[in-house]
Amino acid sequence: MASGTLLYAQSGGVTAVINATASAVIQTARARQVKVLAARNGILGVLREELIDTSKEPAAAIRALAHTPGGAFGSCRVKLKSLEQDRARYERLLEVFRAHDVRWFLYNGGNDSADTALKVSQLAAEFGYPLTCVGVPKTVDNDLAVTDCCPGFGSAAKYTAVSVRECALDVAAMADTSTKVFVYEAMGRHAGWLAAAAGLAGAGPDQAPHLILFPERPYDEADFFARVKATVERVGYCVVVASEGIQTADGRFVADAGGGKDSFGHTQLGGVASHLAGRVKDALGYKVHWTLPDYLQRSARHLASKTDLAQAQAVGKAAVELALKGANAVMPVIVRTSDTPYRWKIEAAPLAKIANHEKKMPAGFIRKDGYGITEAARRYLEPLIRGEAPPPYGRDGLPRYVTLGNALLTPRLPPFKG
Amino acid sequence: MASGTLLYAQSGGVTAVINATASAVIQTARARQVKVLAARNGILGVLREELIDTSKEPAAAIRALAHTPGGAFGSCRVKLKSLEQDRARYERLLEVFRAHDVRWFLYNGGNDSADTALKVSQLAAEFGYPLTCVGVPKTVDNDLAVTDCCPGFGSAAKYTAVSVRECALDVAAMADTSTKVFVYEAMGRHAGWLAAAAGLAGAGPDQAPHLILFPERPYDEADFFARVKATVERVGYCVVVASEGIQTADGRFVADAGGGKDSFGHTQLGGVASHLAGRVKDALGYKVHWTLPDYLQRSARHLASKTDLAQAQAVGKAAVELALKGANAVMPVIVRTSDTPYRWKIEAAPLAKIANHEKKMPAGFIRKDGYGITEAARRYLEPLIRGEAPPPYGRDGLPRYVTLGNALLTPRLPPFKG
Repeated sequence: MASGTLLYAQSGGVTAVINATASAVIQTARARQVKVLAARNGILGVLREELIDTSKEPAAAIRALAHTPGGAFGSCRVKLKSLEQDRARYERLLEVFRAHDVRWFLYNGGNDSADTALKVSQLAAEFGYPLTCVGVPKTVDNDLAVTDCCPGFGSAAKYTAVSVRECALDVAAMADTSTKVFVYEAMGRHAGWLAAAAGLAGAGPDQAPHLILFPERPYDEADFFARVKATVERVGYCVVVASEGIQTADGRFVADAGGGKDSFGHTQLGGVASHLAGRVKDALGYKVHWTLPDYLQRSARHLASKTDLAQAQAVGKAAVELALKGANAVMPVIVRTSDTPYRWKIEAAPLAKIANHEKKMPAGFIRKDGYGITEAARRYLEPLIRGEAPPPYGRDGLPRYVTLGNALLTPRLPPFKG
Repeated sequence: MASGTLLYAQSGGVTAVINATASAVIQTARARQVKVLAARNGILGVLREELIDTSKEPAAAIRALAHTPGGAFGSCRVKLKSLEQDRARYERLLEVFRAHDVRWFLYNGGNDSADTALKVSQLAAEFGYPLTCVGVPKTVDNDLAVTDCCPGFGSAAKYTAVSVRECALDVAAMADTSTKVFVYEAMGRHAGWLAAAAGLAGAGPDQAPHLILFPERPYDEADFFARVKATVERVGYCVVVASEGIQTADGRFVADAGGGKDSFGHTQLGGVASHLAGRVKDALGYKVHWTLPDYLQRSARHLASKTDLAQAQAVGKAAVELALKGANAVMPVIVRTSDTPYRWKIEAAPLAKIANHEKKMPAGFIRKDGYGITEAARRYLEPLIRGEAPPPYGRDGLPRYVTLGNALLTPRLPPFKG
């Protein structure tokens, strides 16, 4: 067994395949006789010294992680500040690493996590502590720099395209006497990647989704209404996909406009779809329905993309290999080498190029009229949702998702007040 | 070829498997050399004489209907009134039947459709027109009388149970620093069948869903809050499944309370989940998320139950066989002959026993505390979601759903003003 342990932690919003990355990390490390600890609830588990010895988990459970959504060790939404501002917490991380002989730290998350991993590596160097920090990409938002795409996105994209295709068939069947306008709300506060993926559900002006609203384009209500009306008059119904982050030209989030008070003065939680549906109903008089899939879109492992799953596993495996080689402050990223046939490989990229950057959707992915995707977007998106990778199902008709034991190691340090 | 044609029409909200019924109807009739017309948009298509000659559709397209959600010929939400009140419309139906030599009428829908089919059969008898009317069961609401379950429900139930299991894993992973309460809104205005199906996602007080709100039990906000709080304190998070039709003790729909005006005075479309989430946030201070799957839950053919699919096909086949035998004013229903192993058969039941009746969930299916399902409910529900029947997927990662040609026959009658 190699000297030292490898610590793996999950960060930020979880995905349908982040556990597939975890599975690959643990399997690859086990094959190299490297012990893997996992932090409970991401970086918080390190600060709190809440560490899980994954060697207690049977091989079958680790394999089953590959088809289990959510975050098996728990994740967190915590961003450490600069080394100066959060000095005590960074030093605590190093103390915990030292107490458990952690020589390799793998942080599985997005931009913020890449930043944390980078800073930890810098502090370790400053202290002369031998540590290799590797970021592992993950996010349904697909907004990480350098990598061609982000593990987690492809499955959420597939969920979105399939769901929009399915509900559009429902609306089409009912439109004559019932719902004429349907609004689907897709995740994406800053970039319209998932809304764009909905575009794969159809092609041409008469196929759903008829209108996609991107955060990259200002939302113009009058223009939107006119297009909804024209679509209903031409097609008989209109399926709209709206990114949660759409804004008016003056920079206000449409979703925020949706919130308010209900008739009892209670907080009415808003949302883009409910707002748009209400406005269309008021202004155009059509019967409307809307959906807010929310977490369903990022946890739908039952509808995972096989491409996405393979990439999630590949970055996990590569992260361990990079770490054990001593490649510090890097992230394994996906490099696309060909669209047709779709080919990709893994390369290491410096965390400094990824931390705190945000990849926007290329302008060339949005149609000139602003309400749909281009052929370039299709070429990019389509391979990412390709292939099915369903989980095994039990006799009870439900996917057999695994729950790990996750017993915590006995702390070796006094509790941290930070 | 048998003399006369068979007319098939779809009615009410569509499901993931109503087209599987249509597929079985057409295939069974074709095997008997019976010509099948389909009405466009349900009974409206008959009134308008908008009829589709299904013999124009290739066999492969008819087979593909079995894995295509929505309503391939269009459906409608139109309820004919009594024979006296809607006399002209009923007579028009008979005129159209006569003009196209329709001898068998299959109406695929719920309570209302059974009622329409029954009345048409009565009027035909009155006029001495030889017509056999057969109702074909369908509804995600599972509220048809006599039949043990309704085609369409099992697939929506499976979607619900799987989705709740998946999003619960997401919430569990994030609860430490993010969402602690998640609310899933299930269809079911009058009966909590789909909310009950969510109960299959877990077992015991600590597994999600932790609380189910049924329309069969009065909604008591203070009691609900107390249980949410207790669950979060015990488990760390709380997943709630709420039936859209829950009401307070004085009979007000909670969903109606949810609607109101947003901060701009615009209509804010409500919903149970958004209302409950807002109230929990206000009262308990927890971070909340919610989902409104809406049509996704009834169109998710990608997650259909194999049991449900088999039953949808079986009722279609049986409906044709009953019709050709001259069994008038009946509906093929599903009779459960055994729970373990699950066994069922098809029998004919009189439409008079089904029309306008509504099957409530047995009181014994809801736990004494009102927030979960009993073992009896599990025994009933579990077989209905059993088995997977995924559609074929294309190279593009999307299900290959079929769109029929649906060319209309040239009308033989003058237009109907009715």
